[in-house]
Amino acid sequence: MKQIAEAIEGERFIGFFLVKELNHRTATNGSEYFDLTLGDRSGIITAKLWDVTEEQKSSISVKKVVKVDGTVTIYRNQKQLAIQRIRVAIPEDEVDIQSLIQTADVSREELWQDLRMMIEEIQSPTLHKLIKTILLSKETREALTTLPAGKKMHHSYYAGLLEHIVTLLHSATQLFPIYPHLNKDLVIATCILHDIGKTKELADPLVPEYTFEGELIGHIVLGIELVNDAALEAGISSRDEELVALKHCILSHHGDVDLGYGSAVSGKLPEAIFFHYLDQIDAKLNAMKQSYTASSEEWVYSPMLKRKIRNRN
Amino acid sequence: MKQIAEAIEGERFIGFFLVKELNHRTATNGSEYFDLTLGDRSGIITAKLWDVTEEQKSSISVKKVVKVDGTVTIYRNQKQLAIQRIRVAIPEDEVDIQSLIQTADVSREELWQDLRMMIEEIQSPTLHKLIKTILLSKETREALTTLPAGKKMHHSYYAGLLEHIVTLLHSATQLFPIYPHLNKDLVIATCILHDIGKTKELADPLVPEYTFEGELIGHIVLGIELVNDAALEAGISSRDEELVALKHCILSHHGDVDLGYGSAVSGKLPEAIFFHYLDQIDAKLNAMKQSYTASSEEWVYSPMLKRKIRNRN
Amino acid sequence: MKQIAEAIEGERFIGFFLVKELNHRTATNGSEYFDLTLGDRSGIITAKLWDVTEEQKSSISVKKVVKVDGTVTIYRNQKQLAIQRIRVAIPEDEVDIQSLIQTADVSREELWQDLRMMIEEIQSPTLHKLIKTILLSKETREALTTLPAGKKMHHSYYAGLLEHIVTLLHSATQLFPIYPHLNKDLVIATCILHDIGKTKELADPLVPEYTFEGELIGHIVLGIELVNDAALEAGISSRDEELVALKHCILSHHGDVDLGYGSAVSGKLPEAIFFHYLDQIDAKLNAMKQSYTASSEEWVYSPMLKRKIRNRN
Amino acid sequence: MKQIAEAIEGERFIGFFLVKELNHRTATNGSEYFDLTLGDRSGIITAKLWDVTEEQKSSISVKKVVKVDGTVTIYRNQKQLAIQRIRVAIPEDEVDIQSLIQTADVSREELWQDLRMMIEEIQSPTLHKLIKTILLSKETREALTTLPAGKKMHHSYYAGLLEHIVTLLHSATQLFPIYPHLNKDLVIATCILHDIGKTKELADPLVPEYTFEGELIGHIVLGIELVNDAALEAGISSRDEELVALKHCILSHHGDVDLGYGSAVSGKLPEAIFFHYLDQIDAKLNAMKQSYTASSEEWVYSPMLKRKIRNRN
Amino acid sequence: MKQIAEAIEGERFIGFFLVKELNHRTATNGSEYFDLTLGDRSGIITAKLWDVTEEQKSSISVKKVVKVDGTVTIYRNQKQLAIQRIRVAIPEDEVDIQSLIQTADVSREELWQDLRMMIEEIQSPTLHKLIKTILLSKETREALTTLPAGKKMHHSYYAGLLEHIVTLLHSATQLFPIYPHLNKDLVIATCILHDIGKTKELADPLVPEYTFEGELIGHIVLGIELVNDAALEAGISSRDEELVALKHCILSHHGDVDLGYGSAVSGKLPEAIFFHYLDQIDAKLNAMKQSYTASSEEWVYSPMLKRKIRNRN
Amino acid sequence: MKQIAEAIEGERFIGFFLVKELNHRTATNGSEYFDLTLGDRSGIITAKLWDVTEEQKSSISVKKVVKVDGTVTIYRNQKQLAIQRIRVAIPEDEVDIQSLIQTADVSREELWQDLRMMIEEIQSPTLHKLIKTILLSKETREALTTLPAGKKMHHSYYAGLLEHIVTLLHSATQLFPIYPHLNKDLVIATCILHDIGKTKELADPLVPEYTFEGELIGHIVLGIELVNDAALEAGISSRDEELVALKHCILSHHGDVDLGYGSAVSGKLPEAIFFHYLDQIDAKLNAMKQSYTASSEEWVYSPMLKRKIRNRN
Repeated sequence: MKQIAEAIEGERFIGFFLVKELNHRTATNGSEYFDLTLGDRSGIITAKLWDVTEEQKSSISVKKVVKVDGTVTIYRNQKQLAIQRIRVAIPEDEVDIQSLIQTADVSREELWQDLRMMIEEIQSPTLHKLIKTILLSKETREALTTLPAGKKMHHSYYAGLLEHIVTLLHSATQLFPIYPHLNKDLVIATCILHDIGKTKELADPLVPEYTFEGELIGHIVLGIELVNDAALEAGISSRDEELVALKHCILSHHGDVDLGYGSAVSGKLPEAIFFHYLDQIDAKLNAMKQSYTASSEEWVYSPMLKRKIRNRN
Repeated sequence: MKQIAEAIEGERFIGFFLVKELNHRTATNGSEYFDLTLGDRSGIITAKLWDVTEEQKSSISVKKVVKVDGTVTIYRNQKQLAIQRIRVAIPEDEVDIQSLIQTADVSREELWQDLRMMIEEIQSPTLHKLIKTILLSKETREALTTLPAGKKMHHSYYAGLLEHIVTLLHSATQLFPIYPHLNKDLVIATCILHDIGKTKELADPLVPEYTFEGELIGHIVLGIELVNDAALEAGISSRDEELVALKHCILSHHGDVDLGYGSAVSGKLPEAIFFHYLDQIDAKLNAMKQSYTASSEEWVYSPMLKRKIRNRN
Repeated sequence: MKQIAEAIEGERFIGFFLVKELNHRTATNGSEYFDLTLGDRSGIITAKLWDVTEEQKSSISVKKVVKVDGTVTIYRNQKQLAIQRIRVAIPEDEVDIQSLIQTADVSREELWQDLRMMIEEIQSPTLHKLIKTILLSKETREALTTLPAGKKMHHSYYAGLLEHIVTLLHSATQLFPIYPHLNKDLVIATCILHDIGKTKELADPLVPEYTFEGELIGHIVLGIELVNDAALEAGISSRDEELVALKHCILSHHGDVDLGYGSAVSGKLPEAIFFHYLDQIDAKLNAMKQSYTASSEEWVYSPMLKRKIRNRN
Repeated sequence: MKQIAEAIEGERFIGFFLVKELNHRTATNGSEYFDLTLGDRSGIITAKLWDVTEEQKSSISVKKVVKVDGTVTIYRNQKQLAIQRIRVAIPEDEVDIQSLIQTADVSREELWQDLRMMIEEIQSPTLHKLIKTILLSKETREALTTLPAGKKMHHSYYAGLLEHIVTLLHSATQLFPIYPHLNKDLVIATCILHDIGKTKELADPLVPEYTFEGELIGHIVLGIELVNDAALEAGISSRDEELVALKHCILSHHGDVDLGYGSAVSGKLPEAIFFHYLDQIDAKLNAMKQSYTASSEEWVYSPMLKRKIRNRN
Repeated sequence: MKQIAEAIEGERFIGFFLVKELNHRTATNGSEYFDLTLGDRSGIITAKLWDVTEEQKSSISVKKVVKVDGTVTIYRNQKQLAIQRIRVAIPEDEVDIQSLIQTADVSREELWQDLRMMIEEIQSPTLHKLIKTILLSKETREALTTLPAGKKMHHSYYAGLLEHIVTLLHSATQLFPIYPHLNKDLVIATCILHDIGKTKELADPLVPEYTFEGELIGHIVLGIELVNDAALEAGISSRDEELVALKHCILSHHGDVDLGYGSAVSGKLPEAIFFHYLDQIDAKLNAMKQSYTASSEEWVYSPMLKRKIRNRN
Repeated sequence: MKQIAEAIEGERFIGFFLVKELNHRTATNGSEYFDLTLGDRSGIITAKLWDVTEEQKSSISVKKVVKVDGTVTIYRNQKQLAIQRIRVAIPEDEVDIQSLIQTADVSREELWQDLRMMIEEIQSPTLHKLIKTILLSKETREALTTLPAGKKMHHSYYAGLLEHIVTLLHSATQLFPIYPHLNKDLVIATCILHDIGKTKELADPLVPEYTFEGELIGHIVLGIELVNDAALEAGISSRDEELVALKHCILSHHGDVDLGYGSAVSGKLPEAIFFHYLDQIDAKLNAMKQSYTASSEEWVYSPMLKRKIRNRN
């Protein structure tokens, strides 16, 4: 079936979508309408449903799967769907919600296997036990393997966080022969745990939102808390030098404090410096690719880089 | 007895000091000498001891109390003591190490009483219990009531941290009638705990140095860890909204993240904004006063403000 | 009568408003309409009046009181009124323009009494006389007691400036016992006069606009000019140290020069530093409250802090 | 004939325009329309053409001259033309494309004469030969004498770049008696060549767009390349000190590197410092004038200065 | 007679100097010495006088003229004079203090004539009268024609401020034909008065120091006060548009407020923008020249530009 | 033979050194001395030679090999050699200048082989030919394989630049499987050529100094010029897209323009972004290691990171 990313202006489009946002509005003339964000496997699109009926008001809501018939228009340089017909999907449609979610390129299961193999590479009993303990929690494991890395900037799709972690593990491993004086275990643990706080900062992989703790504490410190809880459970002393070094790498992974990107300390270990830049490479290359995919223009605006970049699509 | 802060250039000065730093050097001509930092109740002075003897090398070291006879000179615009005679203090001198340490204006005991009274003002059972639990630890209590607030910038003397906290408690309390919509308990708890991580970041109130965790984690996150440990012990849920709000106030107390002063999140609660500026007032007024005291010039350089300020001495 | 701040989307709303802005537009189809900003005691709302008649064009204008019947809609995430019927208020409506203006929480008269009492607390004959002289001018007094503190950021309502000043006076007074070395008279005078230049920078408390001098000179230096004029009238020497210190506090009250917020000098007196942060507390807490009041969402965007803050409404 | 800059809201306007941008859109109701940017000698205006016909779709395109009959409306504070009738110009209209382009105040021919005379003032054989060689290229000469200095900021009209250069030459020459120690030849050469790379960065003076090299290399380095090519052709050594000094002035003409405006080196010669500020004067005064011309309000927003400025119109 | 700027390391130097700074020190061995700054027409040099006698202590002081016999040494990359003999000058030496002061290139009298002629060019009665009134004050006139433009950065020599002003007047006048829409009178008045506040900010042209008002108010606002006083005396209304525009140009002459260089408002008039950059040119070219003159190295550090610049000496 | 990096304070040290800097000074008492910087394979040390003889003045100069007998002292926290005896090396000493230069860990020959192999990996005929052409120049090849990457920051030793390039080639190659959409040839070419301009910016690998072009043009643009010259020679069109992309990667390799580190354009291709961060990793890890090696303290100041880092020595 055709995907929304491929639709072009002026075309009639029929397809299934997951409702990601829904705002119930009143028009100037008093009539009611819906402002919607709809998603399928290829991406998202905003949509308008004019003159909503009582039946639509009661049946359509966020996280419902809907079948839509509409026309693709352009509004402020972005595609928008003018809905002519819409209904909630029924069992006979045989549409699985999973088939409507944008996901990482590699399957979540494969990524998870990769991650597990990397954990077994860790030779430090302390760091190995720490990570195993954190992943004992089904809730954390579930979140870690389904959430995007963020709402918008990079890896912003189902299991994007896991894909980001696994890519970083591969990158770091490839560079270990070049920088043999790096503490490999420390780098591997940082790759796996640097964003672990996102499992508390964001809720719901399908329609991710910031939690109360996410807004007030932020994923960096939420990650430190998860690490501390696991250390306690695993019987690792809070003064253990490997543990402190790992926390340092997590706390400094947004770069120098005075850049103002939210690191709590500036990197003072080579592993912290090394990881920060690897993370930047993966985040920015992924963001650039996401920008390409959504456009067919020669020069595409990248929200992460805040400038136009060359399309490589 | 005359204090070193009062000594003037060219004068002969005899007095007792605590040795705060000692560097054993070799001169160009091969002779050995000591580069010292000496302190008494009024402040510190650098000193030179030329041609050190074997006896001096074995007897004089950091944290020893010494009796010194020397001449006050000026080196790069700062007073320096050229030592003619020096010996380690003996019991007959009846010199107490406490009498050689710069301290807060109010006694540590009174400050501690003030702090205890303020704790009893807290009506939230959660926050009250949390603070009581933290202060159950003799080690934390000891550190909190003896450490300076920092090595140099402000309240950099014995019990300076405690004085800073108690002053903030008084300030906040005075302003509560003006801003009645503030959550008083939250502000009080923030005053008491905002720098609690310094009890792990700095070691030894007499000759304070950064610890390993201090350098790699920093006092803001070390404070969050102390709060979390106490919450666990006191049976407070990690998702408790008062606890999260308190942690938010601690994490944001260095101002907006993008200023690059090390906050992990920017303030999103009125208590966080309120506290940040109160803290600035107390830190900066204290720093200015410390700069005045050390000088008799009309315009004094303030290292904290990074400019000359008007002397009010 | 119901206030516009309480109105919700989709609801029909009838009420009286002050016309704060009016733009006469032509639609694509050639018909004429009004783009309006209407205000009542609870706040402001934008409104559209389609197909205006000749009668409406001649009767409705800025600062008129109108009776409106319309529907509340949402346009770009903000409430907007779609006007069905509108007419200019008549005497029989018994609607007082004062009842349609958002005002400080405390009455202008009470605030004025508070301010007068504080003036009498000043013991310095110089500063006391200076302030009395400034307030001798009916024009200045009128402006000082009716203007908002600004067009948008904080205390942006009738007599908001006066409320801001009186709150600062209360705050400062409460903190004097904590910081006894501050020159109280100097702080009190700064509280009263720091924004006195706004009486020349802004015109018309109902629909405040920047004046020619306001744009080209700015309220900080306009304030210095008012102070100088009064000093001349009161026979105070321009080299008087108290006068110079007061001007320093006014000139530095936007913080350090290199922050780029418009201070002409960086604070070099403790009173200047102290006042700057007190001013920040009052401005930001007030701005946060204004943002809460205008919203029922859990997280509200604060234009002054430039981020989402937690609603405390 | 009336020009579009003089048109006011609500008025019917008939005139000839050059089509500068054309977007073919689909409306929510499925009908097709054009979003246009039209220009005449006095400036540009956006326009809407609803319900486009097949004939219009095939005849109207970018760079066509059209005759339009429409109504002036206001959309988001800017004038917009609602087109009632439109057709492509025919020979009988006797409308020259040159008459529809905004141009420098002085004719391109006169500016070119001025430039040529200034070149003859250069006494350094090296710099004289270098410039002559660059201008031997018909392509460069053509671009240099027709392009705007930029797409939006300043001198953004036909031959604007040439006007900018000639003005700078006059300015510099006037100041030489004041700063006699400046190397005149070096300054003159810098005036002429500082933006020479724009002849490669921008394509098409009528509808200027960034080229591939423009985006990826930028006009500063493209200018260096043109200079180097000419030096090679003219037999000037790449280590010639005058040549290196000229390249330094070009590379530093956006101000100090750490300001982040794209200079490749910070100015280390008086000529570089001198030229940078002269360039700022000319760019900013021109930008301010362009902002005045487009508005009849007392205070006009200047995109270059990023603030409101006083109208001098 | 040889000047100190020409002296080279290792050479014996005999000459007359003005004592600009004198610090009375005690050496580690208890002996007393002087740390001096001596100046002649060509510049300044630091000097050491070891083992000062009682006679020297009583006779030598700041602002005295002395005859010195010493050896030129290098200390931390700067020339220093090791004094072998020194005495206070006597009438028979026939050394005039004026001959020992570094001065502007053109004589103070000629500069003053130039300034007076420019004042007569002003056609606005308001601005003409204003400037005449300011210069009626003998004290202001004296200061304006003798002070340096600053203690260190640029034009830091006797009558340097006047030279700076006159150069700016010539520059501006030369550019008027290029920018005919500028208000000439406004620019001329700004050239003359932009730094007029320095006559209150700095005291004593021979050994300039910041005054109390200079530190707390700064020269920009001190200048505004002088202008206001004169306007009052000359009967010019404080709301006069020319007066307000002039004050705007003075208040914004340090560039945009958010750059943090101390402007009280950002430029909103073309004259303000124009003047700011002209001022930058003159200040920086002069500073560069001062750096050249003091050195014979190929690359010289410029304190104003904060980088090495090419020597043009 | 013992190396200077291992010497400790107070020890007598005899060894051979290369003279890297020599300043001939006069002491306050008129005697002459040398301020020297001496280097051996392990690093550099400053040294003092008091009371130099005529024979020493004529025989000792920069780039000479000398035999020294002296005592290790500490001056301002750095080791310094007080020279008792010194003489120029003679053939019988059998000391090779190469044995006194700090070099890369891997031999220059091996690095060169690695580089040559990588060049053969390039499949693009354009980029392959371009690099071969550049390296045809013996002068460039010589400079590229002997120079440090810089005077101080990172890889600041003999052949440091080549080591840096080869390390980057290995890093990039290792990451290609992770980021398969990158243009490998473009990245390889960027690794090899990003700092090629340093072969013109720095002169003399033994005592590197900035050249005239280095100061005025900088290595980024000097590199572009070398690339352009080679392209011309190799018959590659200046509009060739691969060539333009390569130049883009070189021009943007210091990061975003607005960071102010001297990039001429901000990265708009994934290869540019990727390379910038790889370069950061290699530069910073090398700089950290250089800081460790020079110190035995637990926390070492890193000039590149501008903070203390943890010693890993």
